[in-house]
Amino acid sequence: MSLSVSITAVPGIPDIQNGDDLAKVLGDCMEQAGLFPQDGDILCIAQKVFSKAEGCIIPLSTVTPSDEAIKYGEELNKDPRKVEIVLRESTRVVRSFRRPDQESGTMICEHRLGFISANAAVDESNFGEEDAAMVLPADPDASCARIQQAFAERFGVQTGVVMTDTFGRPWRLGQINVAIGLSKVPATIQEQGNLDAWGRPLMVTEPALADEISAASGLVVRKNGKTPAVLLRGLDWQPADSRGADIIRKKQEDMFR
Amino acid sequence: MSLSVSITAVPGIPDIQNGDDLAKVLGDCMEQAGLFPQDGDILCIAQKVFSKAEGCIIPLSTVTPSDEAIKYGEELNKDPRKVEIVLRESTRVVRSFRRPDQESGTMICEHRLGFISANAAVDESNFGEEDAAMVLPADPDASCARIQQAFAERFGVQTGVVMTDTFGRPWRLGQINVAIGLSKVPATIQEQGNLDAWGRPLMVTEPALADEISAASGLVVRKNGKTPAVLLRGLDWQPADSRGADIIRKKQEDMFR
Repeated sequence: MSLSVSITAVPGIPDIQNGDDLAKVLGDCMEQAGLFPQDGDILCIAQKVFSKAEGCIIPLSTVTPSDEAIKYGEELNKDPRKVEIVLRESTRVVRSFRRPDQESGTMICEHRLGFISANAAVDESNFGEEDAAMVLPADPDASCARIQQAFAERFGVQTGVVMTDTFGRPWRLGQINVAIGLSKVPATIQEQGNLDAWGRPLMVTEPALADEISAASGLVVRKNGKTPAVLLRGLDWQPADSRGADIIRKKQEDMFR
Repeated sequence: MSLSVSITAVPGIPDIQNGDDLAKVLGDCMEQAGLFPQDGDILCIAQKVFSKAEGCIIPLSTVTPSDEAIKYGEELNKDPRKVEIVLRESTRVVRSFRRPDQESGTMICEHRLGFISANAAVDESNFGEEDAAMVLPADPDASCARIQQAFAERFGVQTGVVMTDTFGRPWRLGQINVAIGLSKVPATIQEQGNLDAWGRPLMVTEPALADEISAASGLVVRKNGKTPAVLLRGLDWQPADSRGADIIRKKQEDMFR
């Protein structure tokens, strides 16, 4: 087991534009910073730059809200066009609410990718366009795999790639980064068969590796700091054929949907 | 903002016994490893070693289950004495269930400290005693403060201390370390007043710093590795008069209790 891990923000990443080659931009920034990729490195990259590079920004002027979106919009005091985008990204609304202290309400949705999150991870801030909303990339695992493959070709190294988004949680305040796309990085580590330090079988132990990595990336990423990519080095891990959906608890095992 | 953070497991920590001076043990191990504490270091320490040092292990032979514990025990196929300990640690049972594939069921409880967690964070593994259960320390913030103060006296440095426990989550598989006690480390960072990279006010942005730190510690702690203490160095943070309870979402703002 590794005993020391470094978490480093990749400096100098420019504003990403629709059509940018994200792998090239990241590789260039790492080279310029002297952060030469190594085997076993994990790159943790914010969803926002993938969505920008892949053109996942929807001008509200192109959206016609459905009756359902108009109903939620009135109930929650939200622009029905934004609600419409949330509904299109969702397979189900788990909860919707507007507390008296809220100007506009929140929808907790099951995203088409399976994740449960506020407003189906539709983002209204930080992408430099008014009257638009940003949605997740079509296939976050594929987006991660493209970075992984480009780094293998360019640098001759095997890295892991995690796409993160910033989610709130039930019960606990504040937001934390979680993994929504994976290339090579296992979603969780299965330790059930292992023994504990006293030789007893471990009861239920399945560390959520990809989410640990994602949360750790938050320690060096600050939203206003334009540091959407983070390099983790020194972690002991084995590549896996993993998918972001591997992190999602099965509905029948989830008491809180 | 800091751009690189190191996460290092403190090596050589012996099995902790009831009555051990945890601050002294940790300080000795750090010195021996050449990890001399510095201002701004954050120590992330697993609940288990605090509970051991503070004698928070309850032999089941001393426990007489209540009628309620016996009822839950039958429903969930759990030792009613263990259930009794869970109930004594809890202010409320949020959910209880036993799926057909489970040998014994789970209780999701509101702990007397406010956290929502499985079985009120009562632990049955990894403490070297059969027929006993381990509960959380009486006052995790006070336990953290004792380490903080001892390090200030011994090394002349101001550190932050976080007590972690390993929790499951709704919706997402696997466990992740979260903060249950704090000394000096802010529970969350308030960024609501800040502007994003394009000069727009950030919508809702309150990174859960203490939980990010806790989750990151999991990257170098493995349960069977006997590495219950982790040093984070290089983080940009400001000391605060914080408490573990600061992380708990108010009940009236929580849709999932």
